[in-house]
Amino acid sequence: MRRIFLTFALCCMGQAAWLQATWDYAALARERAPLAIPEFIELLSLPNDAHFPEHVRQNVQWAEVAFAKRGFQTQRLETAGPPLLLCTRQVPKATKTILFYSHMDGQPVDPAKWHQADPWQPVLKRQTAAGQWEAIPWLWIQEQGIDPEWRIFARSASDDKGPVMMFLAALDALKQAGIEPAYHIKYILDFEEEQGSKHLPQAVEQYRSLLKADALIILDGPRHYPSNRPTLSFGARGIATITLTVYGPRMPVHSGHYGNWAPNPALQLAQLLASMKDSDGRVLIPGFYDGIELSEEVRATLAQVPDNEPLLKQQLGFVQAEKVGASLQEALQYPSLNIRGMASGWIGDKVRTIVPDKAVAEIDIRLVKESDPEQLIQLVRQHIESQGYCVLDSEPTEEARMQCSRLCRFDAHIAYRAFRTDVNSPYGKWLQRALSVAFGQAPVVKRTSGGSIPIAPFVETLGIPAITVPTVNADNNQHSPNENLRLGNFIEGIQTMLALLTVPIEQ
Amino acid sequence: MRRIFLTFALCCMGQAAWLQATWDYAALARERAPLAIPEFIELLSLPNDAHFPEHVRQNVQWAEVAFAKRGFQTQRLETAGPPLLLCTRQVPKATKTILFYSHMDGQPVDPAKWHQADPWQPVLKRQTAAGQWEAIPWLWIQEQGIDPEWRIFARSASDDKGPVMMFLAALDALKQAGIEPAYHIKYILDFEEEQGSKHLPQAVEQYRSLLKADALIILDGPRHYPSNRPTLSFGARGIATITLTVYGPRMPVHSGHYGNWAPNPALQLAQLLASMKDSDGRVLIPGFYDGIELSEEVRATLAQVPDNEPLLKQQLGFVQAEKVGASLQEALQYPSLNIRGMASGWIGDKVRTIVPDKAVAEIDIRLVKESDPEQLIQLVRQHIESQGYCVLDSEPTEEARMQCSRLCRFDAHIAYRAFRTDVNSPYGKWLQRALSVAFGQAPVVKRTSGGSIPIAPFVETLGIPAITVPTVNADNNQHSPNENLRLGNFIEGIQTMLALLTVPIEQ
Repeated sequence: MRRIFLTFALCCMGQAAWLQATWDYAALARERAPLAIPEFIELLSLPNDAHFPEHVRQNVQWAEVAFAKRGFQTQRLETAGPPLLLCTRQVPKATKTILFYSHMDGQPVDPAKWHQADPWQPVLKRQTAAGQWEAIPWLWIQEQGIDPEWRIFARSASDDKGPVMMFLAALDALKQAGIEPAYHIKYILDFEEEQGSKHLPQAVEQYRSLLKADALIILDGPRHYPSNRPTLSFGARGIATITLTVYGPRMPVHSGHYGNWAPNPALQLAQLLASMKDSDGRVLIPGFYDGIELSEEVRATLAQVPDNEPLLKQQLGFVQAEKVGASLQEALQYPSLNIRGMASGWIGDKVRTIVPDKAVAEIDIRLVKESDPEQLIQLVRQHIESQGYCVLDSEPTEEARMQCSRLCRFDAHIAYRAFRTDVNSPYGKWLQRALSVAFGQAPVVKRTSGGSIPIAPFVETLGIPAITVPTVNADNNQHSPNENLRLGNFIEGIQTMLALLTVPIEQ
Repeated sequence: MRRIFLTFALCCMGQAAWLQATWDYAALARERAPLAIPEFIELLSLPNDAHFPEHVRQNVQWAEVAFAKRGFQTQRLETAGPPLLLCTRQVPKATKTILFYSHMDGQPVDPAKWHQADPWQPVLKRQTAAGQWEAIPWLWIQEQGIDPEWRIFARSASDDKGPVMMFLAALDALKQAGIEPAYHIKYILDFEEEQGSKHLPQAVEQYRSLLKADALIILDGPRHYPSNRPTLSFGARGIATITLTVYGPRMPVHSGHYGNWAPNPALQLAQLLASMKDSDGRVLIPGFYDGIELSEEVRATLAQVPDNEPLLKQQLGFVQAEKVGASLQEALQYPSLNIRGMASGWIGDKVRTIVPDKAVAEIDIRLVKESDPEQLIQLVRQHIESQGYCVLDSEPTEEARMQCSRLCRFDAHIAYRAFRTDVNSPYGKWLQRALSVAFGQAPVVKRTSGGSIPIAPFVETLGIPAITVPTVNADNNQHSPNENLRLGNFIEGIQTMLALLTVPIEQ
């Protein structure tokens, strides 16, 4: 079968548009995957902790060579931090330009917690009947062919070198088939995403003319869980943070001498936080959810996501979810107001019988496109004032201590803004069509992902839609020890890239 | 003047009862104080961190010698920890026996934080115009006489070796005056008070016949602040503790992927704590304050305490106290429910964008005599149940996670019970009379102190009233670096002990 289709493909060089309905994307991906493994091993063997400039340098150089080999021009976009790498390839007769985004850096590693000597020396593994992962020889790939349940264990196998390798492998397959991509390609590689892409917004401003494109496709992140089906995500929540510090006596005081009399900041903070949300987790601050209306059409889009909430609850160990939305997908359409940390006095071994001097709450607000982060922050601040607090921007002065019956320091920061592309926009329809063609089934369409990625600067500065095409398995231990990539996802990732590169944008 | 009175005193050997109204207690104490300083330096030079058996041994031996020298029989009461030392002196014709309690151990020291090389090498200091404490020669005491504002800096100068030395000095003064104490004396010395006197309750049970007495006087703690006037305290609050742990997902989860859906234990804990108290700090749990009635007589007793609440608030840095009682003294008549520690997730440098897996609150309940600690703990537990929680005694099982919408682990412990002696009881009246005679003014009478001391076992096991006679300055840096004793308080402490030892119990 495979050979037949390949022959067929070869006869029709340069006719990507025509091929899409007849190609066997799966077969081509299965054939290409083993050929891509040696280069992938080479890539994963490069340490990529962005704290170390030498790590960054090696990965930048590798990418320059790899993309140049595939006919790209490469250009380092210098920033005050690590450079970005822009790889550009012009396609004859193409009219559109698609900008791809991935990152090449990874989270720091703690080798002691990995089941292999070096997280940057990839290991092929299979799972035993007992559920353990045991190393197997790379040679088995040649000898037996790839078992889709095998996995490659290495830092960044999934996040985010895997998708880059899938893309390069798809380009190689197209070259072998003599087929040109359906549009001009720009690929921007980020080398400090795991450090928060601090220099990215400024760089997008500075290099906006070089980055000009019709749409942005983000190649990062896991597919829908637990279905592991091909997935498209049309947005991501942004993130803002607030640190609240409530003050009691200026130093911790004896809870015997002063308990029942000195104001307790832990109690005050608890009461303040309790006043912000109801028992189902819904924010009570007026205006916090303003502008968010889930139409019937939107609800239908959300309902088609094949979540398995009972399974997820069982895995996470709780029975009662918050009720901000009627489902997990609905809940993600609203901004959150999440207490991510809280501290006052001492606990456990260090506990002391005191009235604490202060109490701190760390809050993150996951932003949606409808919410103005400045406005949400302002609403929280006003709410605190309405609870009788003097709201401060720094430590309380002596004057503030003597004038205010309640004192709260308020430190807010907007990290990433949200973005969201219309599911039914032209590029949205294109990608749904492309994945449907390649997999014979409509992809899982997520109206927005819950997490935050540094994509809003592209959307806002370049004025283009952005859509994420995730490919890796959700249980990849991203950011953690023993990160891995399921080879079934590697193959289907190549299949996904083939669809993206060949299915024409215009219907 | 002093000489006249002394002569007068010497002529009346053994007639303590008669002397009390005519003696110049102040003069006798002023004369005795400098003579006691060398022995006090010797005592303070003995390290007394109860973590080290050698420290305990040295202090026990010193006390054995010091009390034997004053005509006491000494007896080590062995326990599973450090021994107690019981020093007994029979007085001819006496009918009553008073048991005194002090402790000889001190808090651990951190020499780096002291303004002297060795916290166990006492230094005499005076305060400069700029408010700094500068060392002065011990010789100045002989040359210039004691300035009451000078202070001795050393660990346990105030807590609690100072009162022991005052007592010994008073005995020496009586001996020189040829006067016998007004009752038989038993003095019990504790060598692990700063470690919680863990072995004391058992020892009191075991040695109850040896400890038999008519009343207990506790020589420990600071006088009323800020007046620094002679003080009597008729009780102490007890203490029980509760640790609450509220559970969310079984591990911290991504606040983007799950924020608005996974239950947040920090929010739940905040709401739970907020449900327990109103905004003025009053406990809302029905029955928590049951049995506490402050009669007009009690309110009058509380009102005579010369607190300076505006000054105290200014020093502690707040303007609005809790309103459990109409005053600090009234507030101390009620049990507290104090959040002494709280923690969930991470804050500050370590902050992570997660929904935490659990949230912990450490609570202390300062107990009053009216409140049954078991009952208060039960009320709190029932309140948590009434808020929809499954209340657990250990980590949640898988079954509990799958059955309970809210999970709270509840660990309670009763440390010390409260005690309180009637202000107008015979021994209460005696001590008020004694201090009035010695100082020409009624003492500050505290119905109860807010803190907790391990005295309830004496009261309950021996069935005797207990009253605390504090003598040291409140600003003595007790438990902290640069602990000190004001020499004015040392002198007036000797004066206090002279009154205690000579003013007859029966009117």
